[in-house]
Amino acid sequence: MPGSTFGKHFRVTTWGESHGPALGCVIDGCPAGLSLSEDDIQPYLARRKPGTSAATTQRKEDDLVEILSGVFEGVTTGAPISLMIRNTSQRSGDYGNLVDTYRPGHADYTFDQKYGTRDYRGGGRSSGRETAARVAAGAVAIKILSQLGISVYAGTTAIGPVSLSAEQLASLTEADFVNGRANAVGMPDAAMAEQAMKYIDDCRMQRDSVGGVVECRIDGAPAGLGETVFDKLDALLGQALFSIGAVKAVEIGDGCAVATRKGSENNDKIRIQNGKAAFESNHAGGILGGMSNGDQIVARAYFKPTPSIYQPQETIKKDGTETVLEIAGRHDPVVVPRAVVVVESMCALTILDLLLANMGAKMEHLKKLYR
Amino acid sequence: MPGSTFGKHFRVTTWGESHGPALGCVIDGCPAGLSLSEDDIQPYLARRKPGTSAATTQRKEDDLVEILSGVFEGVTTGAPISLMIRNTSQRSGDYGNLVDTYRPGHADYTFDQKYGTRDYRGGGRSSGRETAARVAAGAVAIKILSQLGISVYAGTTAIGPVSLSAEQLASLTEADFVNGRANAVGMPDAAMAEQAMKYIDDCRMQRDSVGGVVECRIDGAPAGLGETVFDKLDALLGQALFSIGAVKAVEIGDGCAVATRKGSENNDKIRIQNGKAAFESNHAGGILGGMSNGDQIVARAYFKPTPSIYQPQETIKKDGTETVLEIAGRHDPVVVPRAVVVVESMCALTILDLLLANMGAKMEHLKKLYR
Amino acid sequence: MPGSTFGKHFRVTTWGESHGPALGCVIDGCPAGLSLSEDDIQPYLARRKPGTSAATTQRKEDDLVEILSGVFEGVTTGAPISLMIRNTSQRSGDYGNLVDTYRPGHADYTFDQKYGTRDYRGGGRSSGRETAARVAAGAVAIKILSQLGISVYAGTTAIGPVSLSAEQLASLTEADFVNGRANAVGMPDAAMAEQAMKYIDDCRMQRDSVGGVVECRIDGAPAGLGETVFDKLDALLGQALFSIGAVKAVEIGDGCAVATRKGSENNDKIRIQNGKAAFESNHAGGILGGMSNGDQIVARAYFKPTPSIYQPQETIKKDGTETVLEIAGRHDPVVVPRAVVVVESMCALTILDLLLANMGAKMEHLKKLYR
Amino acid sequence: MPGSTFGKHFRVTTWGESHGPALGCVIDGCPAGLSLSEDDIQPYLARRKPGTSAATTQRKEDDLVEILSGVFEGVTTGAPISLMIRNTSQRSGDYGNLVDTYRPGHADYTFDQKYGTRDYRGGGRSSGRETAARVAAGAVAIKILSQLGISVYAGTTAIGPVSLSAEQLASLTEADFVNGRANAVGMPDAAMAEQAMKYIDDCRMQRDSVGGVVECRIDGAPAGLGETVFDKLDALLGQALFSIGAVKAVEIGDGCAVATRKGSENNDKIRIQNGKAAFESNHAGGILGGMSNGDQIVARAYFKPTPSIYQPQETIKKDGTETVLEIAGRHDPVVVPRAVVVVESMCALTILDLLLANMGAKMEHLKKLYR
Repeated sequence: MPGSTFGKHFRVTTWGESHGPALGCVIDGCPAGLSLSEDDIQPYLARRKPGTSAATTQRKEDDLVEILSGVFEGVTTGAPISLMIRNTSQRSGDYGNLVDTYRPGHADYTFDQKYGTRDYRGGGRSSGRETAARVAAGAVAIKILSQLGISVYAGTTAIGPVSLSAEQLASLTEADFVNGRANAVGMPDAAMAEQAMKYIDDCRMQRDSVGGVVECRIDGAPAGLGETVFDKLDALLGQALFSIGAVKAVEIGDGCAVATRKGSENNDKIRIQNGKAAFESNHAGGILGGMSNGDQIVARAYFKPTPSIYQPQETIKKDGTETVLEIAGRHDPVVVPRAVVVVESMCALTILDLLLANMGAKMEHLKKLYR
Repeated sequence: MPGSTFGKHFRVTTWGESHGPALGCVIDGCPAGLSLSEDDIQPYLARRKPGTSAATTQRKEDDLVEILSGVFEGVTTGAPISLMIRNTSQRSGDYGNLVDTYRPGHADYTFDQKYGTRDYRGGGRSSGRETAARVAAGAVAIKILSQLGISVYAGTTAIGPVSLSAEQLASLTEADFVNGRANAVGMPDAAMAEQAMKYIDDCRMQRDSVGGVVECRIDGAPAGLGETVFDKLDALLGQALFSIGAVKAVEIGDGCAVATRKGSENNDKIRIQNGKAAFESNHAGGILGGMSNGDQIVARAYFKPTPSIYQPQETIKKDGTETVLEIAGRHDPVVVPRAVVVVESMCALTILDLLLANMGAKMEHLKKLYR
Repeated sequence: MPGSTFGKHFRVTTWGESHGPALGCVIDGCPAGLSLSEDDIQPYLARRKPGTSAATTQRKEDDLVEILSGVFEGVTTGAPISLMIRNTSQRSGDYGNLVDTYRPGHADYTFDQKYGTRDYRGGGRSSGRETAARVAAGAVAIKILSQLGISVYAGTTAIGPVSLSAEQLASLTEADFVNGRANAVGMPDAAMAEQAMKYIDDCRMQRDSVGGVVECRIDGAPAGLGETVFDKLDALLGQALFSIGAVKAVEIGDGCAVATRKGSENNDKIRIQNGKAAFESNHAGGILGGMSNGDQIVARAYFKPTPSIYQPQETIKKDGTETVLEIAGRHDPVVVPRAVVVVESMCALTILDLLLANMGAKMEHLKKLYR
Repeated sequence: MPGSTFGKHFRVTTWGESHGPALGCVIDGCPAGLSLSEDDIQPYLARRKPGTSAATTQRKEDDLVEILSGVFEGVTTGAPISLMIRNTSQRSGDYGNLVDTYRPGHADYTFDQKYGTRDYRGGGRSSGRETAARVAAGAVAIKILSQLGISVYAGTTAIGPVSLSAEQLASLTEADFVNGRANAVGMPDAAMAEQAMKYIDDCRMQRDSVGGVVECRIDGAPAGLGETVFDKLDALLGQALFSIGAVKAVEIGDGCAVATRKGSENNDKIRIQNGKAAFESNHAGGILGGMSNGDQIVARAYFKPTPSIYQPQETIKKDGTETVLEIAGRHDPVVVPRAVVVVESMCALTILDLLLANMGAKMEHLKKLYR
């Protein structure tokens, strides 16, 4: 069974290769009655766009999205929404020497093993460009969530060894994350962003690449999102974030750190504040038993350094001989800054899908809508 | 849409609460022609069973599995396999004071928020006991995989701060993991296991609990497992492992560590060995572009300390008042050792599902079966 | 991908063979807060039970259902509901001569072709007994629907050539259908039921079997149920009814008859009655564009005669030789009367699933539940 | 959960309205290694195109398909195949008087009830134009099936009362069906086609419309396709055919007729021919127990007359007042001839999906591919 669809209720199916004529997605299950136009989506694509800083490639991609269906007179109709982005900037010639050679750290070898054939132009289906389609869909999800009082925002919290401390993270507000979008690495702390930028520059000089971390926060989600057992909120966030190409680890709340804690340190006490349940700490990242607990939801994705580096690398060719590869073309020395909006998109898609799933959770809901 | 089913081809639907009459699962999509009996499953349930050491609760659970369907004359028929385990050891009285009080770190509060009602006996549906059903299904998956030359094995690699080093991990073989099952913490290193056991004892004395880490390895998987984009092998392993109650972080291969690396350090060089592709290192954990690359697949799950501790804890009651809770009953000071076989099961279910998904990946496969 | 699950929201997975220890189903996605006990289900199983009249087999099956999970203190919790029915009446010896011989009109040959193996006892998985699990699930769905003002009821409208006329059908009320349950063929017209019974008796004397028709009606369903394009209400009713073993045709509304009509005859005029939209006729069977229109929903299933007959039949054996088969055992001369409650169940499962699907259809619904 | 996707393995998601900028579909799960270009698809779209005869509307639609992804160097890569068809011929002005008025027999009223909004231009999502996307996907499925020796072909077997007799149907070959495509009604019998054409002309003169029947046959399918219980081959064919807008009844094999038969008449005897199992008759339409039996698969769909007629019709407006509607624009007096290729497409999608599903049916298959 194929894997290009995410979500069970708000179903997003992406399609397209980096060097084909276009890429896009179909959203099936978008509620009717949402005002929607290209202007709601374009700003998110702009955030993903390369070429905006020294941290990203110098390719120019316009990434203009077209709404092909599902919207009538400016309002969603309940019909599938088809979004298309033409590929306008690809230079296929750049990838000529990759026809027969497998790039280390890329999916070239595994594609050939799985399908017996491979689109060698720019990574084909596994290109980072595929995420443009997710961002377009994510923009729609974010708009719906915002109408329900839920906000989703992410930022770069580490670039290589330049990492925000726990204290720094604890003090950040949504405004800091939004402001962070202005700097070249998307870090919600201007001083650290400068250090990170410098680190990236150094690595680029060494013809090398860099990894990093993105943290996403979701405010305003009602308690109870997430389905018990396999479709837990954290399980689906895990799938969502690991589905982004370069992610090698995912944390919820305090993540790895909990393994060395004791229960007395890790449990979040529940108190009453302003007449409502409130947690004294949020080690859990807003999720208990796979369901949102009404507190802030926190997830982190760890990205590997871009595998495309401008150094000779030992590898093999399709015919089973060894070779040394030198990669040409334009490649980000780090994908993390551009991945921030992708992380936001995947988290928003997850939350919205579970919000829709939750509608049938109790008889009270059915009676409210149908009687 | 409900969340009690895992897998799209080898579909496992679990059911049952810790204190109901029974729990179990239905496996739909098990290939016909597999020899199968309760004896194939029971040893895996024995590994999950509590009461075998000081590291686990003193409840006695027999966990006898019954095959109710799908097997005829000792062989699977292709029909759904219904597996049932009677609950024989529950003492409902132990949980009486939890009727109206939400335990910190548990799903009590979120269940009530989601469903407006809650089975307060032993965690109900979110009890660790639910994983017995997964282990039963996992045993079937592991048997199928073994017939295809694929082995799945896990072990405890950290208990609180007692953690195997990278060097220790690198030297471990499948035999070490298998031997590790004999010690009380399931650690594939006897000396470290003793230290871990001592740490647990200390914590228990302090009426506290402990977290830890489980690593799973899969040998022999063919290259090409995993569907591009959302159903990547790592994405589904992520979902699988986060769906286990206490997991707060998941790593693939070198995991979090890659974020601080450079590309030149992190890329795994590809070489030819014995006429076949071979990777010089395995930072990627056997997965490239979401597909297995033929190398060993490596995943790690980080578990939080058991939230049930024998200390007074501040929390609230269902009626919105604050209270201090003292938990009675029998609880593991650490879930990690018993979770080892659960991790194996979830990984095996993921691999088998993707193996079945992969059958239709290319025309060559179709022609081999249908012409 | 396996096929033992029906529904996307109210997901019913059935399991079990006619001659295994038990059969049952798991319902995942039942809304929490529904009062439920075995007493809600048992009466529906009683209607499916054989042995109640000369029209059905003389096997005695008690079909006692056990709720194994998902209900706590008499109320559904949102957790999966596991329902089990022990097989108590099977006599495996009766089927001994079918080990190697394929019964005409049965699934024996196709099972062997598909799976390479076959449970030859009483049809195994394709036995009519499997429908007991559907009826148990259907009873839960019917209870939920009734709380929302929706009623689902079916009856036998033809046995062989003994068929209710269009005029007779037009005059039938829900009360007639309910009363019809009392007669041996489940026909909502006592006089015709007697004729039908006589026809069955004649056929039985000839050691032959009989087909027939079941019509199902659904009152009170809100307009708008059914998803556009592939999950149309009629498309899913079609799947639901064809999934019942012996069904060879399905009609919605006037069914086959519309093919010979003109548009001016077939269009249902829309008028205003008591301030609301009302259709002057209901040729459409309550469905327009795949969505319910608020009128009565009408579906019909055509059943073939029971393939098990007490006459010598030409067929083949597993080893590829021709043979003549004489069937022993106890078999219904007609399955139609017992299928009435199965048809009701499948229609109720379809309607409830689409009702849940419809909850996310418009922003207005989301805002009603989440703001 | 939305309904624009068909199939579980070869997943087709359609999108687009009749009067939007374009429509199309995404095929996820197409096996890699299939040679494919627009030329494989265009002939099927040509068969669906209107304007080719007096039996169809005089709109000119070019329906040029564009492959936007999933094919590289003329071969499928395993990535999703995005197919797009620009809408070039719509005249929105024609539909101006339908903004507030519900057309009888159309989905106007139900769309508004479900979504609270409606694309009133030419039926929007429920327009017959949506089927162009299905035909494009169907062409790909048919090409794959043909490479496995399976052929799918359909034809008009009745137009209103002009109906091929059982004897005529029995004598038809695949060649007759193919030849039938040349006549204006797609009937595999030239003499009857003329009568049918004359009947349509008469009705058009009366400003009325006509229904009819399409029969589809599948030759060469291996035995064993179809999943037991809910995803039976006939159940999924039922869903597939009822998902076509105007279909009100579906038959498998002898269909409705079996309800009046006796078992001794209806059972298909199994014999050995040329060393292989062969059925003496095919009342079952090639399906036993929901699985293909190796014989010809036969399904029939009954279409209602086009609801758009050029006569005044009583109906209501959105504001709840009664009115009389006169429809302008260009409408087929009968959809049946153009639906033939849609029926073929839906049947081919169903067969291919079950063929892929069947790959994991037995251990023998797994071992053949993975060892």
